[in-house]
Amino acid sequence: MKKNLINLIDVSTKQGKIFSIFIQVLIVVSLISFSIDTLPNLELETRRVLGVVELFSVVIFSFEYLLRVYVSPKRPKFVFSFLGIIDLLAILPFYLSLGVDLRSLRAFRLLRLFRLFKLVRYNKAINKFSTALKEAKEELILFFFITILLLYLSAVGIYYFENEAQPDSFSSIFDSLWWAVATLTTVGYGDVYPVTVGGKIFTFIILLIGLSIVAIPAGIISSALSNVVSKKEIK
Amino acid sequence: MKKNLINLIDVSTKQGKIFSIFIQVLIVVSLISFSIDTLPNLELETRRVLGVVELFSVVIFSFEYLLRVYVSPKRPKFVFSFLGIIDLLAILPFYLSLGVDLRSLRAFRLLRLFRLFKLVRYNKAINKFSTALKEAKEELILFFFITILLLYLSAVGIYYFENEAQPDSFSSIFDSLWWAVATLTTVGYGDVYPVTVGGKIFTFIILLIGLSIVAIPAGIISSALSNVVSKKEIK
Amino acid sequence: MKKNLINLIDVSTKQGKIFSIFIQVLIVVSLISFSIDTLPNLELETRRVLGVVELFSVVIFSFEYLLRVYVSPKRPKFVFSFLGIIDLLAILPFYLSLGVDLRSLRAFRLLRLFRLFKLVRYNKAINKFSTALKEAKEELILFFFITILLLYLSAVGIYYFENEAQPDSFSSIFDSLWWAVATLTTVGYGDVYPVTVGGKIFTFIILLIGLSIVAIPAGIISSALSNVVSKKEIK
Amino acid sequence: MKKNLINLIDVSTKQGKIFSIFIQVLIVVSLISFSIDTLPNLELETRRVLGVVELFSVVIFSFEYLLRVYVSPKRPKFVFSFLGIIDLLAILPFYLSLGVDLRSLRAFRLLRLFRLFKLVRYNKAINKFSTALKEAKEELILFFFITILLLYLSAVGIYYFENEAQPDSFSSIFDSLWWAVATLTTVGYGDVYPVTVGGKIFTFIILLIGLSIVAIPAGIISSALSNVVSKKEIK
Repeated sequence: MKKNLINLIDVSTKQGKIFSIFIQVLIVVSLISFSIDTLPNLELETRRVLGVVELFSVVIFSFEYLLRVYVSPKRPKFVFSFLGIIDLLAILPFYLSLGVDLRSLRAFRLLRLFRLFKLVRYNKAINKFSTALKEAKEELILFFFITILLLYLSAVGIYYFENEAQPDSFSSIFDSLWWAVATLTTVGYGDVYPVTVGGKIFTFIILLIGLSIVAIPAGIISSALSNVVSKKEIK
Repeated sequence: MKKNLINLIDVSTKQGKIFSIFIQVLIVVSLISFSIDTLPNLELETRRVLGVVELFSVVIFSFEYLLRVYVSPKRPKFVFSFLGIIDLLAILPFYLSLGVDLRSLRAFRLLRLFRLFKLVRYNKAINKFSTALKEAKEELILFFFITILLLYLSAVGIYYFENEAQPDSFSSIFDSLWWAVATLTTVGYGDVYPVTVGGKIFTFIILLIGLSIVAIPAGIISSALSNVVSKKEIK
Repeated sequence: MKKNLINLIDVSTKQGKIFSIFIQVLIVVSLISFSIDTLPNLELETRRVLGVVELFSVVIFSFEYLLRVYVSPKRPKFVFSFLGIIDLLAILPFYLSLGVDLRSLRAFRLLRLFRLFKLVRYNKAINKFSTALKEAKEELILFFFITILLLYLSAVGIYYFENEAQPDSFSSIFDSLWWAVATLTTVGYGDVYPVTVGGKIFTFIILLIGLSIVAIPAGIISSALSNVVSKKEIK
Repeated sequence: MKKNLINLIDVSTKQGKIFSIFIQVLIVVSLISFSIDTLPNLELETRRVLGVVELFSVVIFSFEYLLRVYVSPKRPKFVFSFLGIIDLLAILPFYLSLGVDLRSLRAFRLLRLFRLFKLVRYNKAINKFSTALKEAKEELILFFFITILLLYLSAVGIYYFENEAQPDSFSSIFDSLWWAVATLTTVGYGDVYPVTVGGKIFTFIILLIGLSIVAIPAGIISSALSNVVSKKEIK
């Protein structure tokens, strides 16, 4: 009996694979159901169906959670692991009738999908990425720090140029920070933008410098990745 | 006779080259004609000319399709190939007077242009790319999966922050997903954007993490390409 | 006498360097003057000053043009070269009192600045880039072709989804092409955007595929550049 | 006594580390306080607290500045160094009751944080970047020059296409330059965009060429960085 249960969550067995795929499908189904649930003006009949899907998901997820705890060789370690806490938070609110809706946290359960990837040949690709991320970690942290510094300086600068001309859009450094984020990431919603000549020239200079800086983390990861690949091939 | 017909679609012969270029030009002409046809308030005279171009294109395309089927050594294989189906869909609706207008599918016929590239020296460049894409395939799939996960989590997050303040723009997870797509790709149309302090801070964090992730597939392809080139040179 | 004149446009001599810098400064001054001239509501006094600057520039540019023609060993070759034609077009309209204002073409004369770069140590950097561009030429042409294909297919797709819902914004394939350009380059002005569910999902898919493709040319140039550098170091 | 003071600003000692962290925290606190101060409609009580934080910061910063001057072996060199001037500008206005508010300059004091990075293991990452930047310096300057050239030519082009149709948005070359900046960086606020057919086609062509060029500096830095890494590993 215990053997069978262990097999269920051991993806190297056939039952484990089927159970794992079933759980993944259920996570996706329960997330779609949760998303539909946020739609306004739903009909009563639809809500009823969503409720049934929800009940079914929670029952299965609870069974799976208890099974994982039961089977785990080091129970406390699993319970307090990242995935363990996510698994618990995904079902607990249902029983406690809490006001907070944590169903969306199930999205993190999608991370379990990476296990599925491991089944297939994606193990190599995931390893490459984690190695590349580890090697580029210091540079990434450094660049995120530089990015935040740049965002703050941009916000302070634009505040001086635009505050007088647009007291509503650039009312404080915090509002200016929002502009800096939208501009340097090149999202540019268009809800706030400079109108003074000084502000426009400042934006131009900031973008000339900033664009390269904001785009570098992606370049760092890519080249770290590329290095990992070359090293593997040399060995 | 059959020899001549085979030569027509064999791009290694002179007739084949001329016929191929003629067909390419006709595809472009028929697409321009189709595009003009969508313009509202066209004059009757223009519509008549477009109709003639359309008739002429379909006759030639039909002749070319039948020729390809006739000449093909393995007929069923060609008929059910991607290009074979596209070729058929590009002419069939004309004869069946279907309500659906599939003329736009002819755009896919432009893919035949790659054959022309083969004539010239682009063969090497195409090979490089297909090798690079094949090598980076697993990583690309992994990253598209991470991107979709990130988009969903962003949508859920912004929904909680903005739903109350902007019940029209962020009315459900699906509307929030649209915001997530427009933001993380940095398109930023400006039709939906966060207005609450929490939503703006959330957007900032999501962009800081997300920008690097969304930009990585291009980096992967570029570095795979660069690796293919180096290997070629080493050999 | 002729020797002195040759020296004037030979940047390897001291006089040549000074004359070259003088011409560069005059190009920049004349461009700034031209830009100011486009400002509406200028005062009469300002217009008069701009007129003097313009007259002075044209006289000097004419002198320089004639000098270059006079000094050039192969006169027709220089006259019909790209820079030669630009030089002529920058001064001719002034004498002919043509309706067309070609002063803006002087901006291309800024390309002469690259000569200045050659004086300094930028020769190496320019060589690297031209080598990289030459090596990546085929791939770049291929990708520009793929980009145009993608833009057309996106335009056709969005036309079907949005034409009915927004007959003004997506009135034809051509209007849809404008949307495709603004979206796939991630500029996203926000003047046109999809509103239907189908159009939004289509945009999402197109962006997922398209972003990587549109960003690749920059990656190609960068990696070609990086390859040129490595080769130089190996030699 | 002097030994103790020297130790305070020598980050290799324990007291130095603690003092350095304390100063960093105070810089961040004083910047947050400065940012809050820009909020309109603050309560009197809040302003009073901010005033106390400000007074406290200035006293400590003054003490630190004097200490650095006192301890520095080459006093004039420190006083006129970049960080020395920033340190002075961050406190001077408080004493002189100048109209200009230079508190925002304290943001530059965050650069001292890099010293903290040196404490930890980020030394290597910073070295890599400065080496990469030095190696790519010429190419970066060249590309910034090309970018500015491209922006000017784009502005001139769009001015001719759009000035007549939108005399308010594209009233001069300078207004058109603002459009060029917002477009080629792909920020696309949506405050100005072409409406004529010619202007849209021009935008398309400019974006096709320009996107690759604007994105290259990031690519240059990334590949320079990647080269630095490989070289280090070869040695």
